Amino acid sequence: MQLRVNLAERSYNIEIGSGVFNKALEIFAELVAKNVKLFCIADSCVLKRHSDKAKAMRKLADIIEVDGGEASKCFGKVAEICSLLAQKKADRKSCIIAWGGGVIGDLAGFIASVYMRGIKFYQIPTTLLAMVDSSVGGKTGINIEEGKNLVGAFHQPQGVFADIDFLDTLPEREFSAGMAEVIKCGLLGDVKLFEDLENIGSDWSRNHSYLSEAIFRSCALKAKIVAEDEHETASSGGRALLNFGHTFGHAIEKLYGYGTYRHGEAVAIGMLMANELSKVLSGADFKERISHVVACSKLPMSVANQEISVADFVNAMAGDKKNSNGQLRFVVLENIGDAKTVVVDKAIVEKVVEDCLK
Amino acid sequence: MQLRVNLAERSYNIEIGSGVFNKALEIFAELVAKNVKLFCIADSCVLKRHSDKAKAMRKLADIIEVDGGEASKCFGKVAEICSLLAQKKADRKSCIIAWGGGVIGDLAGFIASVYMRGIKFYQIPTTLLAMVDSSVGGKTGINIEEGKNLVGAFHQPQGVFADIDFLDTLPEREFSAGMAEVIKCGLLGDVKLFEDLENIGSDWSRNHSYLSEAIFRSCALKAKIVAEDEHETASSGGRALLNFGHTFGHAIEKLYGYGTYRHGEAVAIGMLMANELSKVLSGADFKERISHVVACSKLPMSVANQEISVADFVNAMAGDKKNSNGQLRFVVLENIGDAKTVVVDKAIVEKVVEDCLK
Repeated sequence: MQLRVNLAERSYNIEIGSGVFNKALEIFAELVAKNVKLFCIADSCVLKRHSDKAKAMRKLADIIEVDGGEASKCFGKVAEICSLLAQKKADRKSCIIAWGGGVIGDLAGFIASVYMRGIKFYQIPTTLLAMVDSSVGGKTGINIEEGKNLVGAFHQPQGVFADIDFLDTLPEREFSAGMAEVIKCGLLGDVKLFEDLENIGSDWSRNHSYLSEAIFRSCALKAKIVAEDEHETASSGGRALLNFGHTFGHAIEKLYGYGTYRHGEAVAIGMLMANELSKVLSGADFKERISHVVACSKLPMSVANQEISVADFVNAMAGDKKNSNGQLRFVVLENIGDAKTVVVDKAIVEKVVEDCLK
Repeated sequence: MQLRVNLAERSYNIEIGSGVFNKALEIFAELVAKNVKLFCIADSCVLKRHSDKAKAMRKLADIIEVDGGEASKCFGKVAEICSLLAQKKADRKSCIIAWGGGVIGDLAGFIASVYMRGIKFYQIPTTLLAMVDSSVGGKTGINIEEGKNLVGAFHQPQGVFADIDFLDTLPEREFSAGMAEVIKCGLLGDVKLFEDLENIGSDWSRNHSYLSEAIFRSCALKAKIVAEDEHETASSGGRALLNFGHTFGHAIEKLYGYGTYRHGEAVAIGMLMANELSKVLSGADFKERISHVVACSKLPMSVANQEISVADFVNAMAGDKKNSNGQLRFVVLENIGDAKTVVVDKAIVEKVVEDCLK
């Protein structure tokens, strides 16, 4: 399956399905034939797990091995790899290939955006989260002590190859975490996707024949939203809609300590909290339907009992970089497949958080 | 004088003349009234030399003091200031003001391009070089051990305020270095500018009434070229024309040790070397006219006698990031005010370098 992301001269294709890794190799071979130097920034685990594919890649590209953990998304790693690229004589026509999960995509994409003021890059996401989330939209970035993704750039790839074969070896929990973003896409803008997942119910697994289509529909929705608001400058709606469940989710990740909850797990809980907010604001309540789909993907539905204060939770949300001037902005549902952005009074938010933390 | 730089939705104005700093303060005050937080990244020498202006700025913006030397253009400084911005709660609507010479503009512009994936910034250049060179074109960047400006971004400012009053306190040698870029603009695309400088001759000084117009014409030429080739992707001509004298100049800076020759001094010598290349390639020779104008700006015309080998010189040029696949590209003159890019055979380049190093 092929999806076109329409962004004028920055448009590109996403190839989705089993075996598209080989298609990527064909395209890379063509570049090499044109004297383009390729540098593949790859997750060391992926290289180990897929040694045959790594061997094939090594014939075409210089491989730069990176640990796939969040700690790699830092200035030090960017500086180190930029120096390495310069030493290996990477020039303006050279291309970077990001091969791994979201961390690798964010890091390699950011390096591609700043090395020599920007060179081209391709993505081969190997996790479900990276396939449906970071492969569309061109957001790249690193973390600083003060917060995640506070430094970065918008830099669109030349192409994305989402080969579902990589998902076979993905740990169960990682697969579930990726599903949170798929469910999110259904909820905020693709009622058909959400209903399909409802109907599949507990039969859902990474081996289900619907997997490629679920990824395709998620990417297509995101691509449509990004095409209309590439740099997240719309004053309402737009790219911000993709943050459904994320304002709550980011606070959960931060307060419980990064890594306690996977991003997707925090988003799953965050979507149910956002539903509570929708309920208070407009009466729209889809708790049962959301919970069902979330549970079928083996995702958590609420935070573990811990001493987190309502004030800390709300403060963590106010510090989110989507918010400016201390306003609290949220994405709420009007219906399944229909979301909007709203600014919500602090008192209302506090009440919802209080109820959810109980 | 006001110049419009036309870059679609990234268009902006450059204000040039005496006292435009106050105009900048008015615009910043309007932003503050709209609750926009301002962060002024300023050269510590400028703050010291212009304490009244610094006081006025401090009322509107949070000032982040930086040493104006080339060493500040590094990853460490970018990381440090990004953290500082986050601690001071700079958000997506916050603006950065770059106040200083080229180093400050390049550093602050790069920080603005990556903090929260890009926030707005203004420039108040305080050197002639920064006014005519780095204030147009949106090139920002830092150095890595392997080379200057190897990391950076294209990020256009919201506005530039080139107040010539700052030039009063500029060291003589800095002013001359800036003149090299003015002369370059005349040579590659503005015959009127070059002829004006020829006619003014030895009467030229920073107090000459033509100063604002010389800056205006230089910026206007650069703006026209940048508007046609924003990201330097044209296969010939385009932004690369602005490198007239620079391929030779960069090699001089590198081989004699950064700092031995100011960038502008190296470019002045480089322009005369490029003229020799033009002469060999097409017979076009303007040595006398270029030397006259260069001398009137108190710029050097050849490198000091030192043991630099031709091979080292040519290798240094081949390593320039404008070159790819080992080709040697140069900008040569067809006439005063008319330049073009050419790929030149290594043997010819070696001969020219050999003659010039004698």
